[in-house]
Amino acid sequence: MPPRYDTITFLSDYGTTDEFVGVVHSVLRSIAPHAAVVDLTHGVPAHDVRAGGLTLARSVQYVAPGVILAVVDPGVGSERRGVAVEVLGGRAVFVGPDNGLLAPAVAMVGGADRAVSLTNAEHHLPAPGPTFAGRDVFAPAAAHLANGVPLDELGEAVDTTTLLPGILPLTQERDGRLVAEVLWVDRYGNVQLNVDPDEVASLGDRVALGFHGTARTAVRAATYAAIPRGQVGLVVDSYGLLSVCTDRSSASAELGLQPGDEVTLEAGGPMSTPVELRVAP
Amino acid sequence: MPPRYDTITFLSDYGTTDEFVGVVHSVLRSIAPHAAVVDLTHGVPAHDVRAGGLTLARSVQYVAPGVILAVVDPGVGSERRGVAVEVLGGRAVFVGPDNGLLAPAVAMVGGADRAVSLTNAEHHLPAPGPTFAGRDVFAPAAAHLANGVPLDELGEAVDTTTLLPGILPLTQERDGRLVAEVLWVDRYGNVQLNVDPDEVASLGDRVALGFHGTARTAVRAATYAAIPRGQVGLVVDSYGLLSVCTDRSSASAELGLQPGDEVTLEAGGPMSTPVELRVAP
Amino acid sequence: MPPRYDTITFLSDYGTTDEFVGVVHSVLRSIAPHAAVVDLTHGVPAHDVRAGGLTLARSVQYVAPGVILAVVDPGVGSERRGVAVEVLGGRAVFVGPDNGLLAPAVAMVGGADRAVSLTNAEHHLPAPGPTFAGRDVFAPAAAHLANGVPLDELGEAVDTTTLLPGILPLTQERDGRLVAEVLWVDRYGNVQLNVDPDEVASLGDRVALGFHGTARTAVRAATYAAIPRGQVGLVVDSYGLLSVCTDRSSASAELGLQPGDEVTLEAGGPMSTPVELRVAP
Repeated sequence: MPPRYDTITFLSDYGTTDEFVGVVHSVLRSIAPHAAVVDLTHGVPAHDVRAGGLTLARSVQYVAPGVILAVVDPGVGSERRGVAVEVLGGRAVFVGPDNGLLAPAVAMVGGADRAVSLTNAEHHLPAPGPTFAGRDVFAPAAAHLANGVPLDELGEAVDTTTLLPGILPLTQERDGRLVAEVLWVDRYGNVQLNVDPDEVASLGDRVALGFHGTARTAVRAATYAAIPRGQVGLVVDSYGLLSVCTDRSSASAELGLQPGDEVTLEAGGPMSTPVELRVAP
Repeated sequence: MPPRYDTITFLSDYGTTDEFVGVVHSVLRSIAPHAAVVDLTHGVPAHDVRAGGLTLARSVQYVAPGVILAVVDPGVGSERRGVAVEVLGGRAVFVGPDNGLLAPAVAMVGGADRAVSLTNAEHHLPAPGPTFAGRDVFAPAAAHLANGVPLDELGEAVDTTTLLPGILPLTQERDGRLVAEVLWVDRYGNVQLNVDPDEVASLGDRVALGFHGTARTAVRAATYAAIPRGQVGLVVDSYGLLSVCTDRSSASAELGLQPGDEVTLEAGGPMSTPVELRVAP
Repeated sequence: MPPRYDTITFLSDYGTTDEFVGVVHSVLRSIAPHAAVVDLTHGVPAHDVRAGGLTLARSVQYVAPGVILAVVDPGVGSERRGVAVEVLGGRAVFVGPDNGLLAPAVAMVGGADRAVSLTNAEHHLPAPGPTFAGRDVFAPAAAHLANGVPLDELGEAVDTTTLLPGILPLTQERDGRLVAEVLWVDRYGNVQLNVDPDEVASLGDRVALGFHGTARTAVRAATYAAIPRGQVGLVVDSYGLLSVCTDRSSASAELGLQPGDEVTLEAGGPMSTPVELRVAP
């Protein structure tokens, strides 16, 4: 059986303090030694399916073809299904829990072609307990797929319309304002909104932000470095979404904004112009 | 000389903030470019030989055959030996300090076949100072072993009975209670005890836990998700040991339990049953 | 076109919580699947070009030949140049921002042979926004170099004398004292000074340290374990520089020393000798 995929991309909420990630790597290496494993991140907040799904959606267009193993799985061992979801005519397969984690990324690459529930225990590791499906169910499935095991050998076919959808918040209009939501705060404290730059094109160079009952004016800027010192900037970030930023400091810390917070946007008035005091003639 | 091992599994307490792990990888890559390096974890608490030894013991059955490089080494540069320990008829070799770190994992795979002290400086890197044996002694030894250098070229033979043993705490009986110890608290706050489920089979579905002078009743549960909200559960974890858990929160934070703490277990009485108030006839 | 380099060594300030590192790995894997990627560290403090440059300088002599991708880039998207700098007659190429980050390591391996500005957009990824040059500019450049794309195809030649130098602090003499600076505090709290052991050879076994307006006597020790309990030691660290250390505790936490702090050193007087009280004859 010739190998089918030579890259396994791996995301989880396992963190890097415990050995969970290393043990999953060990299982992958033992079953599919030919495959390279790319760690997308293991820093998804523990049990945060929404954050994991957004991370996967941001990354998926850059991921190398192959198997994408994703595990954020607070319901591990309960009745939630483990699934493998084929996309892009077989160029890639997602493996993980059917809890909405995979859905935004699957949608972003064109939707599921077909899917199976990982019920065939022949392709699992014997498990001393039911709590580490990443090691015992998902990693073996990913490795066997990389080795060329056909999708339908991993378990029963699943109607792809029954896969749990992810929830991506949409912007709304309210009282003439655009109502947005914080999707993500990155390491640098940049605050990504669910706002496409087109949605705010008409608001001009100064935008009034409202959040937590306070207001703050932000200026549009092309780069972080172009934000005037001490001011708040709105930058089109590397994923093409609008981010609230400050230069070389954390906008999140300064403004108290966290994922899930509501932010409103409206036109912030004309650019301030120098005031000239003239003596009456 | 044909390569002998194609996987080097690497555990340390180096953390991921400094470049220690990356420099060791660089040394491995320079000497044994054919070998894949699997990072088990580098998040062992600094200088915590016991935690590192337990991590290695939990993981070893999943590790791919090859060289296992393990460095938690508070006595670096002192008189403690660096060793390479062959196990499983040569399927794997452990490399690290002889300070008890390797011992639990070596015991778990059947004990040491033979061992050497890493005294042959020809296989070390020249060291500007004596404090980074991971880079200068252990990584070169691991890489040379992967390349096929015979074990006994790395240094003098060591009587395997003189290797420092690890200390694995055993449960005890006291006043009719099982006295256990916390082995590990994972990222999710699950509290692993040194208790085999068989040891508590007779205690029933409700178990009275005693720790830090307080008592708390725990219910047996098959999965985290099956623990009733607000209650404490006892789950057989992914290593087959009993863990004190809560659903989607940190049992460690809630109960104040840390590695090394004592926990007593005894039968917690009958299941609570609905009370029926009847009017006397 | 045969591949030219089979190792890409990667350092950044991206941290491991977000997916930045994983996305860069994905881009490298997609363009240059033959290349192994060695992560030096991604724990450089956010935006800290000096710390990143020092990390790279400490590591460079151990790095495998190939491409060295380094990204600490607070000025991303602004007018600072992205560059590729060839060294060692082509054995290695550095790729990153021209902001002083690469300079100490480049100097340490003998200086730049030639350099280009990464202006050829044909070798960039299309970027939704200008803020993630690691993904869109630097990673593609590194991968294409590994694949054998000639340096001068990546952009216009740059006069190597115009590359921004790094700043490495030198020790000074003041009032008979050696005035040093803290370069680095590692995970264990060891405090590396910019002091070569030769500079303090004449100071004897006891050295008086001055910092933050206080004084403290340190003893020279060969290893951490040789530092007497409760005392402060001066150890030649694994990079050949003098470090202020305590045994199995954090000298940084105990003494309040951080990178950039000034420390003075002078002879600390004779070894204390046992006092013998004798009754007068």
